[in-house]
Amino acid sequence: MAEVIDGGVTTPQGFKAAGVHSGVKYRSLDLGLLYSDVPATACVGYTSNAVKAAPVQVMMKENSPKLQAVVVNSGNANALTGCRGIEDAIAMKNAVATGLGIDPKMVGVMSTGLIGRFMDMHKIKYGISKATLSLESSREADDLFAESMMTTDTTKKECAVRVRLTDGTLVYIGAISKGSGMIEPHMRVLHGTTLSLVTTDATLSTNFREKWQNILDDSINMVSVDGDQSTNDTCILLANGRSSSKCADDDPEFIAALQFVMNNIAHSIAKDGEGASKLIQVQVIGAECKDDARKAVKTIINSPLVKSAIFGSDPNYGRIMMALGNSGCKFNLDNVRLTIKGGNVEVPILDSGAPVFQDERSVEVVRMAMDNKEVTIIVDLAVGDWSATGWGCDLTYDYVRINAEYAT
Amino acid sequence: MAEVIDGGVTTPQGFKAAGVHSGVKYRSLDLGLLYSDVPATACVGYTSNAVKAAPVQVMMKENSPKLQAVVVNSGNANALTGCRGIEDAIAMKNAVATGLGIDPKMVGVMSTGLIGRFMDMHKIKYGISKATLSLESSREADDLFAESMMTTDTTKKECAVRVRLTDGTLVYIGAISKGSGMIEPHMRVLHGTTLSLVTTDATLSTNFREKWQNILDDSINMVSVDGDQSTNDTCILLANGRSSSKCADDDPEFIAALQFVMNNIAHSIAKDGEGASKLIQVQVIGAECKDDARKAVKTIINSPLVKSAIFGSDPNYGRIMMALGNSGCKFNLDNVRLTIKGGNVEVPILDSGAPVFQDERSVEVVRMAMDNKEVTIIVDLAVGDWSATGWGCDLTYDYVRINAEYAT
Repeated sequence: MAEVIDGGVTTPQGFKAAGVHSGVKYRSLDLGLLYSDVPATACVGYTSNAVKAAPVQVMMKENSPKLQAVVVNSGNANALTGCRGIEDAIAMKNAVATGLGIDPKMVGVMSTGLIGRFMDMHKIKYGISKATLSLESSREADDLFAESMMTTDTTKKECAVRVRLTDGTLVYIGAISKGSGMIEPHMRVLHGTTLSLVTTDATLSTNFREKWQNILDDSINMVSVDGDQSTNDTCILLANGRSSSKCADDDPEFIAALQFVMNNIAHSIAKDGEGASKLIQVQVIGAECKDDARKAVKTIINSPLVKSAIFGSDPNYGRIMMALGNSGCKFNLDNVRLTIKGGNVEVPILDSGAPVFQDERSVEVVRMAMDNKEVTIIVDLAVGDWSATGWGCDLTYDYVRINAEYAT
Repeated sequence: MAEVIDGGVTTPQGFKAAGVHSGVKYRSLDLGLLYSDVPATACVGYTSNAVKAAPVQVMMKENSPKLQAVVVNSGNANALTGCRGIEDAIAMKNAVATGLGIDPKMVGVMSTGLIGRFMDMHKIKYGISKATLSLESSREADDLFAESMMTTDTTKKECAVRVRLTDGTLVYIGAISKGSGMIEPHMRVLHGTTLSLVTTDATLSTNFREKWQNILDDSINMVSVDGDQSTNDTCILLANGRSSSKCADDDPEFIAALQFVMNNIAHSIAKDGEGASKLIQVQVIGAECKDDARKAVKTIINSPLVKSAIFGSDPNYGRIMMALGNSGCKFNLDNVRLTIKGGNVEVPILDSGAPVFQDERSVEVVRMAMDNKEVTIIVDLAVGDWSATGWGCDLTYDYVRINAEYAT
């Protein structure tokens, strides 16, 4: 069993981090660097948006099986920047490699911020030289690194656990993620903007990539803030083996711990969705296949009508069924069941294709359930045994405000 | 050439309409009736949402090739109402048939309003009896009928034209539509809530259904207010042949006139999208196939980030490309061109995969283009000859407000 601890990306052995101000942003930290003192097995998931930012293109092309450092900047996504953007992303890797005396192929690069503007490489290079001199292994370094990745985020999305593997070794997993808007990642390993970095001192082989895909598909790829997949989504897992564990690729304890960490991160991203006042969790059960369950979750969680009803605690549950009907998943309306949960209140809404109640008092109970910081929607499709869970947030005035003046 | 005239659904010969207050809504008109003095060829498009409202189910089952009357109520969608809802929809048809002395199979039925509540049939029947006595052919009757269909609509969506067919006959087409939210129709003929009724005194055969599908696909099915397809979308074309024209199924003048009317209606629905302050028109050209062009239009027009940027006249055009990249359509990023038009300003934004400009003055021009009541986005995918146009609206504080308190 994984035990949650107070920690971050430098909690696993052999990792150091830094976060500095390069000047791309006016005041806030905007450049971060993560370093492992030995090359680490890297499993990376990238956005499947056809318009990929320059750093994503550069990393996918090299596709290094091992990484020793990752540089991240915020304030500029280096996306839609043509050849010059590619050159700039390569220059970022080279600057880090020179500063740390390592192979440029061992350097990962991530960017987040405004799309369609060229990078100011003078500032970025200044930031990199400052960051290479500030690397540290401490909670303070975790914090500075986390801060340097943030854009519209209002909270740090950090999680750390320790877990004893089946071979008896105690290993650590630390994760940091940013992401608040333009969030519906469909990241594919090997081949938005949420950026995540997960470090562990467990030993993994590059074959772990397939399992990493499964873990992403059940966690961060099930988050949607606005249904808009970013050009920059990247999620890097670094395993440096410093715990001297045996290969943990198939260790159920390790996999469960990593899934726990990633679910925690997914939950945090949805909760801090741009302008969000409530977390919405959607559980679909009884689906004919996994894909159907995921489709149903995503369609419900992305419906602006469902999202704004939950914002206003407006008991307009018909909208959930409207969204389900548009999802393309198979269900039997005569047997579908719908339940809404919030706080201590759990209300069955729909049974056998018709509402369970019609009276105003019951409608008031639905409103009470919806009037909570976390609202859970449970839909039983009644046609099979597959299920999926996803996380989103309500649609608020603040979402509109934030995104009506982002570039301004 | 079709000539736009001041008219509505009773402008074509032989049509009468009424709009009354039945009591389902507190004060506003909530029940409408349309009648043709002879049975009319009916082409009907229905929502493809798997959760279909009772009136849609009832009409699809009978699938009458001819209709003589259509009853519409607002305030209650009669959706998610199980067997009782089906009985109520049938009872509405029967009440109209009795009142008018026609076959119940000749009566169409449409509902719009809140989902998941049973109909108050006492009120509905009272309204029907009142409406059957108030049928008239006049602009006032058009108005009352239009008003009785409205929910969150703030404007009437009405259009009428007269057109001389190739056989020399002068025929009339009149259309009325309601729809403001839960709008991304994908209506299929034969097999949002936007409800539309189109009347004509031209002669059509039931084979016209296929052409009706094409016209819907290029007009009303290209509208999206919120990407949420309703359980109730229905679009009925009634052709009563009272002009004594030859069969106009293949008459290019008639088809062009009908397409014009439906595009006009589509435009009006998008413009009156819930909370909308601006109309967004997206034109995709140079696509490899029609389906790709439509997919690209829909993904851009549905992106909450694009919609809120346009609300704030925020020149964050990178989001348009982000959405394009998620659409699944084929394009060549090295040749894609993006242009934004508003008022008299037309700005090329992207050429050959990189922004045309980087300076703040040009960015200001983009803002000026976006600061208009109608903003057009033109994307050239540069891989083929297909194109599509769609209509949507911005995402505003008012959209959130309206939908956070709809059921309340």
